[in-house]
Amino acid sequence: MADLATESPRTAVDPANWTCPAPLRDQPVVVMGHGGGGALSAELVQQVFAPAYGNPTLAALTDSAVLHLGGARLAFSTDSYVVRPLFFPGGSVGDLAVNGTVNDLAMSGARPAYLSTAFILEEGVELAVVERVARAVGAAAEAAGVTVATGDTKVVESGHGDGVYVTTAGVGLVPDGVDIRPQRARPGDVVLVSGPIGLHGVAVMSVREGLEFGVEIASDTAPLADLVAAMLAVTPDLHVLRDPTRGGLGASLNEIARASGTGVRLVERAIPVPDEVANACGFLGLDPLYVANEGRLVAFVPPEHAEAVLAAMRAHQQGAGAARVGECVADHPGMVVVATGLGGTRVLDLPLGEQLPRIC
Amino acid sequence: MADLATESPRTAVDPANWTCPAPLRDQPVVVMGHGGGGALSAELVQQVFAPAYGNPTLAALTDSAVLHLGGARLAFSTDSYVVRPLFFPGGSVGDLAVNGTVNDLAMSGARPAYLSTAFILEEGVELAVVERVARAVGAAAEAAGVTVATGDTKVVESGHGDGVYVTTAGVGLVPDGVDIRPQRARPGDVVLVSGPIGLHGVAVMSVREGLEFGVEIASDTAPLADLVAAMLAVTPDLHVLRDPTRGGLGASLNEIARASGTGVRLVERAIPVPDEVANACGFLGLDPLYVANEGRLVAFVPPEHAEAVLAAMRAHQQGAGAARVGECVADHPGMVVVATGLGGTRVLDLPLGEQLPRIC
Repeated sequence: MADLATESPRTAVDPANWTCPAPLRDQPVVVMGHGGGGALSAELVQQVFAPAYGNPTLAALTDSAVLHLGGARLAFSTDSYVVRPLFFPGGSVGDLAVNGTVNDLAMSGARPAYLSTAFILEEGVELAVVERVARAVGAAAEAAGVTVATGDTKVVESGHGDGVYVTTAGVGLVPDGVDIRPQRARPGDVVLVSGPIGLHGVAVMSVREGLEFGVEIASDTAPLADLVAAMLAVTPDLHVLRDPTRGGLGASLNEIARASGTGVRLVERAIPVPDEVANACGFLGLDPLYVANEGRLVAFVPPEHAEAVLAAMRAHQQGAGAARVGECVADHPGMVVVATGLGGTRVLDLPLGEQLPRIC
Repeated sequence: MADLATESPRTAVDPANWTCPAPLRDQPVVVMGHGGGGALSAELVQQVFAPAYGNPTLAALTDSAVLHLGGARLAFSTDSYVVRPLFFPGGSVGDLAVNGTVNDLAMSGARPAYLSTAFILEEGVELAVVERVARAVGAAAEAAGVTVATGDTKVVESGHGDGVYVTTAGVGLVPDGVDIRPQRARPGDVVLVSGPIGLHGVAVMSVREGLEFGVEIASDTAPLADLVAAMLAVTPDLHVLRDPTRGGLGASLNEIARASGTGVRLVERAIPVPDEVANACGFLGLDPLYVANEGRLVAFVPPEHAEAVLAAMRAHQQGAGAARVGECVADHPGMVVVATGLGGTRVLDLPLGEQLPRIC
């Protein structure tokens, strides 16, 4: 095995391949799609990390884990943020780093409490940029009601980073009686989304590529723990919560369908896709169902509670645009299908990689 | 403020400056020394992160934080690992990522329980390299008695990483009656180190630079939680524990002296510096007191317990080479001095940056 000290990994890249987010799976090198939250990411976890770590929490590797420690049920989660550019309409890498980890904790029903931040800085980046990111972290933490309790900073040589990478981890408490996880989806569950989808991915892409769509599209990045608390106040028996980030709604629903063995049936016209997202996606050749969101959640709710939970969501700032978009069915277990506007159905599969790399 | 999307940070680097680990402090850009664990790192925390985060846990930003959550006292810590090369005699980035965070938790007296791992992979790195790092993480976690509970993977384009960066966070429980922190050092405390110093830094440097010193020098990377438990079994009243990683023993002792306002007096000939480390440091122009360790701790112990704690350390595999190296004094508060072999004394100051960048 080549030692990275003596042989640059760049020499292993196939030049015909290096811009493709979803290339051949038999390539023995890391490709952009391995970071996309789709099938390639799942394969990396299942084939590389799961066997290496060999423990029963493997299934939780893409989620927040719920742990028993000191008599409490603790949610614990981490994510690295490598978004490019660092600042975009509606937010920055600092907002994502806080909200993303806060939201991962909230998707277990936890009340987020403490965060850590670990910065990997590239030599030569302006200290003013670092300061701007740090201030965004501080402001987002205050808005989300969490405390940054511990941190670390490393510096790498110019050409081995991209200004600022931030990794956050978070801990929170899971209330008694709450058991929210993908395996709990079951036929009959109503599928709700908390608002319009696709804004984050399109916002980042438009500024990165210098595109103008007539209106400025801003990221939806926001903390969702308060919204989740409002939903849990209706009933602690929410079955599944998920924030559809990398891979979008399509990836999240497929993961839930596969984990639970239920089918999911969406109604296309019920899915809130803003006109500006639809137009931008049409222009860019993207499917809004696979575009990343950073301030939205999808909920699987028992039918008897669905109307009340939806009303509670709509009464909350972060859920004002909430909608019922589908349901769980006993047909086609493990699969997601979409009833189209023309009366047909199409299969919504797990994406292979990511349409837009470096989105978060 | 320049947006990193449109202006590469590399253009901000002064070419006359880019290899210097400890350059001018009035440069408004990040330099390698900001990641070195010395005075520049401390300034970054105090001048950038502390004001931005604005919370009372700021002093803990370079340590594990002790939090109250769900009725338990929880230690929480994070570190990014950007060591170059990824594999070196005695260990790898995977071992460091586990042992480093386990040790940060142990330095609060905590029993480490769960870890998270977040990988930032560079496009084009061989999957076999990722797998080798993941296996090292799994093996080190098993050896340290901790569970990897959650994780994340991101991929960045070739030329924006260095193969594999790993960020770990960890949580553990602090036993009742244990209160270990730098502020508790006081005159009279005996200073103990758990074994020979300087091995990790010299091991990494020798393989990075292709140097041969006649004997292979292996990193000391090891988990220290069991050793700490053995010490706490003697008395829960340990005052301070610290693993002298970046910046070495010199940086750790200065931080403790400043945090507590006590003076520290070391006896040079009592400090266990292996011959091969002394020889390599002489050749490279390094001071072994500032070279990183990854499997050593320094303890400040009340004098009445010092002999018993030292005996317990020597009876443990990770403390077999433990030694009494000095004491806390009322003189020169906040300063560290070394009694040299020639009968004089010298001040051991906080290093500015790091002698060896990318050491962990």
